[in-house]
Amino acid sequence: MTILLNNDGYWHDKYRAALAKHLPERKVVEFDDDYDKADIEYALVWKHPDGDLPLYPNLKAVFSLGSGTDYLDAHKALPTAPIFRLIDPNMADDMALYTLYWIIHFQRQIEVLRQQQRKAIWQRYPTPLAHEVKVCVLGQGAIGGHIANVLSRNGFETFGWSRSPKSLDGVNSVVGLEALQTVLPDMDVVVCMLPAKPLTHKFLNKDIFERMKKGVSLINISRGSVVDEDDLLSALNQGQIGAAALDVFAIEPLPKSSPFWGHPNVHVTPHMSGATNADTAVEIIAQNIKLFEVGTMPNYRYEREGI
Amino acid sequence: MTILLNNDGYWHDKYRAALAKHLPERKVVEFDDDYDKADIEYALVWKHPDGDLPLYPNLKAVFSLGSGTDYLDAHKALPTAPIFRLIDPNMADDMALYTLYWIIHFQRQIEVLRQQQRKAIWQRYPTPLAHEVKVCVLGQGAIGGHIANVLSRNGFETFGWSRSPKSLDGVNSVVGLEALQTVLPDMDVVVCMLPAKPLTHKFLNKDIFERMKKGVSLINISRGSVVDEDDLLSALNQGQIGAAALDVFAIEPLPKSSPFWGHPNVHVTPHMSGATNADTAVEIIAQNIKLFEVGTMPNYRYEREGI
Repeated sequence: MTILLNNDGYWHDKYRAALAKHLPERKVVEFDDDYDKADIEYALVWKHPDGDLPLYPNLKAVFSLGSGTDYLDAHKALPTAPIFRLIDPNMADDMALYTLYWIIHFQRQIEVLRQQQRKAIWQRYPTPLAHEVKVCVLGQGAIGGHIANVLSRNGFETFGWSRSPKSLDGVNSVVGLEALQTVLPDMDVVVCMLPAKPLTHKFLNKDIFERMKKGVSLINISRGSVVDEDDLLSALNQGQIGAAALDVFAIEPLPKSSPFWGHPNVHVTPHMSGATNADTAVEIIAQNIKLFEVGTMPNYRYEREGI
Repeated sequence: MTILLNNDGYWHDKYRAALAKHLPERKVVEFDDDYDKADIEYALVWKHPDGDLPLYPNLKAVFSLGSGTDYLDAHKALPTAPIFRLIDPNMADDMALYTLYWIIHFQRQIEVLRQQQRKAIWQRYPTPLAHEVKVCVLGQGAIGGHIANVLSRNGFETFGWSRSPKSLDGVNSVVGLEALQTVLPDMDVVVCMLPAKPLTHKFLNKDIFERMKKGVSLINISRGSVVDEDDLLSALNQGQIGAAALDVFAIEPLPKSSPFWGHPNVHVTPHMSGATNADTAVEIIAQNIKLFEVGTMPNYRYEREGI
């Protein structure tokens, strides 16, 4: 009945406290502890070393401590036990508010207001109403769909791009590449929620930037590898992309030498759009373990395939 | 059947276009035009000169081009015809998004992220979830209540302070001064939506700032006269108020000499939280004129009394 904990080495104290609260009867060991692999039934992991989990003979299930699956995709050896992604509504809400913040920032030209303040200039200008601002969320998975919903609920004209049609209240479903190319020229803001997959690698490149409206704003909160960063920098320098809020990068931490840090139209945030909250994460996983133990398969099982 | 237009001299071209669209059969004159006062049946005005409107013998109704009534309160002579405030849901939405923007700004410490970016520092820190952030909206009129609703819908723990109890979905109703003093010490953000009235004059002063949590964030989007600006500056300098987003001031435009312009913890915006949109404003007023002409009293009639 032992649980293995390895959140990439971070915040184990918070996870231990949350486990003590939500699964008080379970023994918890950390990856660096001295323990018998045969005792481990459940593993709560993030960026766990490739090849380790298949060595646990009594492993029943793995609970990833995030929603992204790129580190699992990169593993050569996965255990036969099912793996579940963490879809925490709190994290989805958090990412939606992060997105909403930057959309309002761009809608109201807050940088202009900041410049005016520095010069003590009182100058009003018209700003579009929310329903006059068109936003497309690329990727309509559990979190991308939630973000589109939140944007729509706050009045923005919202589009959601996905492989298969989605029926989300107030969100215009855009399906397939051709349809995307048709709507892109009208978008004022593009939000990237595409997962890092072979098919999405550098999907946001020169070709797609050129299809966007001149001066479009870009928000990337999924993975840096989805963007061709050289092309993005050129598009920013040419004004094709007017501004960008970037939370994720091909290399993290973003190297000191990156031109994004000092770019006047780029907002860099350190992969903080939706942090995993240990308490709510473990609460969800505890419920899933209980479901699993009575024979019910939890949601969001990780599958190797698909973009 | 003539309509008088006087939006304080501003944007008359936009209002004329909107009137031509929504009330195409009506003649429109501007205050500076040469016209016979006896022809005027309806007046669409903002900050119209005191004493003028009572001189129109056939005036049926006055439609103010904003929600605030302080300029009407200051008038010595008002016409006997009813006066209606403009409550435009678009403006209320706009003000709610402005408020939401600054709440997220404070919640996520975006200024810290901006400083980190200037130094190319990649440093994460925990941010509270929305439901861990407590916000009180002072004033629960048509717009203040809407703002509280939007904040609650976006997950913030929302309180609304008003004279009489309100029943708004997800909003904790706080009634009376004693109850306000009880909840204030717990608030992370205070949003001022109080109208400018004798009772609210400099209501936000040293005494009330001292009851707030140290480091509280303040957002003022109603009227500058509700705040004692000297006390606010002291509270900011002492750190009692951690940050402020101020859209309104005792004197507007804010004088170049104001210390708010250069204060590191103050965000000055030029009374832009919710601009009147000529098209939607005139659309609402056109509907109200049609209601009025079939004997139905429109909503939001201006009353001289009350805070």
